[in-house]
Amino acid sequence: MNIKADISLPTWQDVLVAHERIAPHIRRTEILTNDALDQQTGASLFFKCENLQPPGAFKVRGASNAVFGLSDDQAAKGVATHSSGNHALCLSYAAGRRGIPCNVVMPRTAPQAKKDAVIAYGGKITECEPSTSSREETFARVQAETGGDFVHPYNDPRVIAGQATCSKEFLEQVEDLDILVAPIGGGGMISGTCLTVFSIAPHVKIYAAEPEQADDAMRSLKAGHIIADDAPETIADGLKVPLKDLTWHFVSNHVTDILTASEQEIIDAMKLSWKRLKMVIEPSCAVPLAVILKNPEIFAGKRVGVIITGGNVDLDKLPWIET
Amino acid sequence: MNIKADISLPTWQDVLVAHERIAPHIRRTEILTNDALDQQTGASLFFKCENLQPPGAFKVRGASNAVFGLSDDQAAKGVATHSSGNHALCLSYAAGRRGIPCNVVMPRTAPQAKKDAVIAYGGKITECEPSTSSREETFARVQAETGGDFVHPYNDPRVIAGQATCSKEFLEQVEDLDILVAPIGGGGMISGTCLTVFSIAPHVKIYAAEPEQADDAMRSLKAGHIIADDAPETIADGLKVPLKDLTWHFVSNHVTDILTASEQEIIDAMKLSWKRLKMVIEPSCAVPLAVILKNPEIFAGKRVGVIITGGNVDLDKLPWIET
Repeated sequence: MNIKADISLPTWQDVLVAHERIAPHIRRTEILTNDALDQQTGASLFFKCENLQPPGAFKVRGASNAVFGLSDDQAAKGVATHSSGNHALCLSYAAGRRGIPCNVVMPRTAPQAKKDAVIAYGGKITECEPSTSSREETFARVQAETGGDFVHPYNDPRVIAGQATCSKEFLEQVEDLDILVAPIGGGGMISGTCLTVFSIAPHVKIYAAEPEQADDAMRSLKAGHIIADDAPETIADGLKVPLKDLTWHFVSNHVTDILTASEQEIIDAMKLSWKRLKMVIEPSCAVPLAVILKNPEIFAGKRVGVIITGGNVDLDKLPWIET
Repeated sequence: MNIKADISLPTWQDVLVAHERIAPHIRRTEILTNDALDQQTGASLFFKCENLQPPGAFKVRGASNAVFGLSDDQAAKGVATHSSGNHALCLSYAAGRRGIPCNVVMPRTAPQAKKDAVIAYGGKITECEPSTSSREETFARVQAETGGDFVHPYNDPRVIAGQATCSKEFLEQVEDLDILVAPIGGGGMISGTCLTVFSIAPHVKIYAAEPEQADDAMRSLKAGHIIADDAPETIADGLKVPLKDLTWHFVSNHVTDILTASEQEIIDAMKLSWKRLKMVIEPSCAVPLAVILKNPEIFAGKRVGVIITGGNVDLDKLPWIET
């Protein structure tokens, strides 16, 4: 392992503390099974429905752990982050529940629905241009002005410990899982899954699912170092961001493999989930089902846990309907 | 009560037998709650997700009770029915599980998703015009040809006893419900709900939810006798059929009231369910939420059980997206 001395890895103890801390603020999400999908894949699939979290995504776990772990002094200044998606929304939700300020830097091009949700939860948006330089510059200014605690969307030990509570619940709810599958973008959920699995169920294999068109994590794993793409284009909008040092540690040491799916395979799996599971899921979280359908030699005959990460979809614009 | 001597009312004992008989073939469906919808309505809402039944609708309960209650001799000739959709596909599903023939008469205008499902489950479709008169005429011919046991979509004591198992489970799963709400078309689910409620929880009020544009049950209740429209037009395609003698008995004696919603209110409630509950539900089963949103004076402050009756939607054709 090549871990820089200055990065702070979350521990299993952190996960236990996190779970107790966030319990009043999250949903212990339901597990669904589906005969038709089992038949189609040859596997026994268990779906943990994080799309049923109040703000519609698993990121409420890490965000709540960060927000409710702040001392009162820290909390008075609130929290701040940059995000165009579910982390912004979930951090605003958690900050709203604690009654502290939440400042979010979002690209002006972010979906209006997500901006509306941030505002509805009491978050304050500062818009930036859709470029890394503008985002960093704007965020530095906002943070300097507000003094809010920076909660990174994934490269933060509090966030990873929070996300780890999802697979902790999963292993409590379903016995004898052979495999866990989750999507990978920046690697927060996968890192939390690694942390839980190597702590309490090291026999469980972990597969990360990634869009072919944003396969930087897969290439990083093969290369042995982080590869960050500048601006990948994929319908799985939650999975465009690169790994960072903390998440790279978990991914490089504990993930069995990273499997990829094409845009069409992701859309087909998304529609199939809507049809069979009757679940509204977003494109990013259809990638696991897509890779399961594509790789029966890995999954058939196994008890496979699938993390349904989120359900915040623009219902007016579905990828299989031409408008 | 004005009950004709020759109609055979199902009893609570029939419900207990039905529940044991169908247990291997149905799902004990999950209950969802949702903070945002509770806030919006002022009620504590509990959603019983019958859309998660393997064939996507509650009608698998009554259909399975009928199919698995047949003697081997009766079963050899199979079953037959007419249905706008979910009963057809649920009866096909149940017949398929028993390995017996299933003939169904469906209006040619029924959703393609439902026709496809009937065929996938091994049912045989004969099409008719979308009117009660055409349906009954076509069915008489099909039944004469096949000799299959007629399992009426709702006016059949076996079917009503089967549907009653849904509210039986609901009352076992959620304590202290004040109100149950379900959609009303022919009245099978509502009749089963009445049967359960007056048998084991007579303090629970029952509200039926009906489209304004197919409000024959509401007008029947006010008039004191069955009013049947021949071919009402509503997006709630499962709710176009009229009450019959058995269901009229339950509706007229045990339903607290029938509330109606406009087409736009139904579409809005459907979209809201997708957005908030992350559940794919069909238009017919959005009517309860629509009437709850419309009548806060009845529901606010109450513990309200809502039966999410089905989720078989044509995903290529959503009512809020112009194509």
